[in-house]
Amino acid sequence: MDTRRFITIEGTEGAGKTSALTTLRDWIAARGDEPLITREPGGTGLGEELRRVLLGHRERGMTAEAEVLLMFAARAEHFETVIRPALQAGRWVICDRFTDASLAYQGGGRGLGVERVRELADWLLGDLTPGLTLWLDLPVELGLARAAGRSTPDRFESEQQRFFEWVRSAYAQIARAEPERVCRVDAAQPLDRVQRAITAILAARFND
Amino acid sequence: MDTRRFITIEGTEGAGKTSALTTLRDWIAARGDEPLITREPGGTGLGEELRRVLLGHRERGMTAEAEVLLMFAARAEHFETVIRPALQAGRWVICDRFTDASLAYQGGGRGLGVERVRELADWLLGDLTPGLTLWLDLPVELGLARAAGRSTPDRFESEQQRFFEWVRSAYAQIARAEPERVCRVDAAQPLDRVQRAITAILAARFND
Repeated sequence: MDTRRFITIEGTEGAGKTSALTTLRDWIAARGDEPLITREPGGTGLGEELRRVLLGHRERGMTAEAEVLLMFAARAEHFETVIRPALQAGRWVICDRFTDASLAYQGGGRGLGVERVRELADWLLGDLTPGLTLWLDLPVELGLARAAGRSTPDRFESEQQRFFEWVRSAYAQIARAEPERVCRVDAAQPLDRVQRAITAILAARFND
Repeated sequence: MDTRRFITIEGTEGAGKTSALTTLRDWIAARGDEPLITREPGGTGLGEELRRVLLGHRERGMTAEAEVLLMFAARAEHFETVIRPALQAGRWVICDRFTDASLAYQGGGRGLGVERVRELADWLLGDLTPGLTLWLDLPVELGLARAAGRSTPDRFESEQQRFFEWVRSAYAQIARAEPERVCRVDAAQPLDRVQRAITAILAARFND
């Protein structure tokens, strides 16, 4: 199975994943193809149920191990029933968050460690990885301010800030380890420059 | 943490797990202790939610990988929030099904392979295993007949039978690999002899 057309978008809050998704879809549409667009957690009936379980436990909490295993349960179903068939049919697949999000959020943010979460990724997917991952990177403070629509973080957001710093460090660690797959995009730039950066990456990767 | 007082009960349908649980509880109560009695999947708020998700998908189905990852998500929460605290407080814990059930049902029955599922068990629990596992073993046909309350299997039950043969083989494989932990109990015997077999195992293990 060819995973070159399997593109994932990653990044912390306020990084502009939705805009990036539109840029990607338009670029692929301009080539005459229609990509499958999907997201994690979710993307299947089971995945949406588990997404609700995860969100429902936001207050009560759950152990980091339970959380990451739930994420991978949703991913197992999603990959086998949605992503794999589309790739086997030769389609482009754009996925809003994938395995790297578990490495970053549960491995980095929740403290399980990137390597420990990578063991689950290897267990489930072996060598199968996206062909290209766009990591929309920006300073945590800027992302949170964008997401909240204002400029000064309150106490709760300050706690969030530490969490997202760990998430960001984990993404940086992944990008260093897999420079061919993971392309960092400076998401602090104005939107039009982010879009141009993304199309430049796509052109370099797919236009020859 | 001392896991010697952590006892699990395993077996296929109709093996008599509920009676065995009563025998165990009575034996421990006669020593003046009150065991924590719990079950998988379930045993926590999250676990019961996931149990409902698993049962709800019985018809529609889900991939074997998703199923086993859900089981381990429930187990992660259950072990950390229920079993571990009880063991740390010095209590006896009796658990109706634990990791071996995933090895047998998803590894054997669903075809993932016992070793592949064991990787998840190692990921989650490392060296932590029950101190004693009672495997209530009986011929699959007898168990299904008992469970159904009649003697001749219909077509659906014949398909079930193959599944449970794989589950039983997996339990046998686990018992061969860990003879000190896993005690096979002949569950085809009359109930009073099963009870005596169990109390004999407990006496040999704990009375000195």
